[in-house]
Amino acid sequence: MTHPPIISTVRALQAESDRLRAEGKRIALVPTMGALHEGHLSLVREARARADVVFLSIFVNPTQFNDPRDFDAYPATLERDLKRAAEHGVDVVFAPDVAEIYSEGAQTWVDVSDLSEPLCGASRPNHFRGVTTVVSKLFLAARPHVAVFGEKDFQQLVVIRRMQRDLGFGIEVVAAPIVRERDGVAMSSRNVRLRPEARKQARALVQALNAAEKALAAGQRDRDALLAQVEAILTAPSLARLDYAELRDPDSLEPAPERLRDPTLLAVAVDFGVEGGQAGESVRLIDNRVLVPPRKD
Amino acid sequence: MTHPPIISTVRALQAESDRLRAEGKRIALVPTMGALHEGHLSLVREARARADVVFLSIFVNPTQFNDPRDFDAYPATLERDLKRAAEHGVDVVFAPDVAEIYSEGAQTWVDVSDLSEPLCGASRPNHFRGVTTVVSKLFLAARPHVAVFGEKDFQQLVVIRRMQRDLGFGIEVVAAPIVRERDGVAMSSRNVRLRPEARKQARALVQALNAAEKALAAGQRDRDALLAQVEAILTAPSLARLDYAELRDPDSLEPAPERLRDPTLLAVAVDFGVEGGQAGESVRLIDNRVLVPPRKD
Repeated sequence: MTHPPIISTVRALQAESDRLRAEGKRIALVPTMGALHEGHLSLVREARARADVVFLSIFVNPTQFNDPRDFDAYPATLERDLKRAAEHGVDVVFAPDVAEIYSEGAQTWVDVSDLSEPLCGASRPNHFRGVTTVVSKLFLAARPHVAVFGEKDFQQLVVIRRMQRDLGFGIEVVAAPIVRERDGVAMSSRNVRLRPEARKQARALVQALNAAEKALAAGQRDRDALLAQVEAILTAPSLARLDYAELRDPDSLEPAPERLRDPTLLAVAVDFGVEGGQAGESVRLIDNRVLVPPRKD
Repeated sequence: MTHPPIISTVRALQAESDRLRAEGKRIALVPTMGALHEGHLSLVREARARADVVFLSIFVNPTQFNDPRDFDAYPATLERDLKRAAEHGVDVVFAPDVAEIYSEGAQTWVDVSDLSEPLCGASRPNHFRGVTTVVSKLFLAARPHVAVFGEKDFQQLVVIRRMQRDLGFGIEVVAAPIVRERDGVAMSSRNVRLRPEARKQARALVQALNAAEKALAAGQRDRDALLAQVEAILTAPSLARLDYAELRDPDSLEPAPERLRDPTLLAVAVDFGVEGGQAGESVRLIDNRVLVPPRKD
């Protein structure tokens, strides 16, 4: 199977987009950092269902990594990614190098203020500023009609929706549901970096979400009681260090009220220490679910 | 004479831009805050020379005023502006209200870091962040091929060029030279707010630029000597309070070396107190010139 064409410059991608738009074609963009797994491929399927042409971008964005070790360790698997992209009907792969996206003297940042602050924003300073800046550049390079993002990075989705609305890119931002491994662990490019023992323990995240959902269905509405249950599950594994477990409004990301009434985001983040790894080396996993309290009749 | 069509929503302007682009038309945008004078009209002429269709935006952007009194006092002359736009061949006027550009909960900022810091950025905190954010929104709403800005706001021009290059809007940013009144004072919407005595004294700005140019032509290369001469002229008028007078690289805005060799930006800003006005009320004028040291043979 041959690869889809690879475009490596912004100018060439803009020209391709202009050409396709002039033909009346509808373009979807799937932004990724490569290391494609089933989660990404579900985004591609979503994109294909909504557009005539699918652009997939592969760019490991240095400005969204607050830890340079995490950036260096990020898996690079371009050949395999291209094969998977071809198998799933991607029409164009955009794979620029860092200098193409951040030219010499680059100093322009796109920042979404309040929504970038809590949750992952609190643990990863400037992470979302890196995300919104690179996504702006990708939006301007690809000029898609639709862009597809995964719900696994739920806060990212909320931040990007806000950015698209505030700046007026005129792009429909589509959310695709989380794809999970057979044991329930959310697909992530970081899962391959977990040692076997930590990989087993990583099930705690989805178990915590399941437990909260079950408790809510059984009538538990108390925010702090739900969080206590979630935290107990997340802190039980020997290699886990809890980063956060929070209940928040899925649109505004404001903290949930003491008693849950409306659909509420449960978002969790756990660091898994790497046995025998260097000091401070760890793999950070996140997961989330929007919990919907059953109506009282 | 009838007015050009007025568009007041981002969505309608994007649709108009898409329609014109599909016809192969080249679009130029002239962003203004209204109160159109000969300086703005020179931008429109420049735009007409470079495109098939000219969009003129009129939007007094609240986020670039650090002083709310300055925002409130900004002249609003829409009827006259529309007449002038029609006379000068503007095809579409984009005149949104504030809620159209900053919707409820808007919190996305576009920020150019280093270039926004010195000169006007030092005296007007967050001014350039307001400018780059609104210009991004205007660029995305109008999707022009060309955008024309005046050299009177020289730092703004440098900042916007950097932003367009960093984010990749794919827009040609064109600079138009300063237009001056008969007595040499740079055209500005703020000039009408000067009392007669201050209006006379405002000639000090262009006189300072002229004196520096003359001194340079006569062999003066010493940065501090040139600035001392400029400051003496700017501080002489009784109503003037010097904000800054600086020599900087016209591209990087880095401070000029002690002896000038290359083309160097001389930028000045002076506050003119309003006699009998409220405490703190003043009108801030700026002017600039790129000084080119004559070659030594």
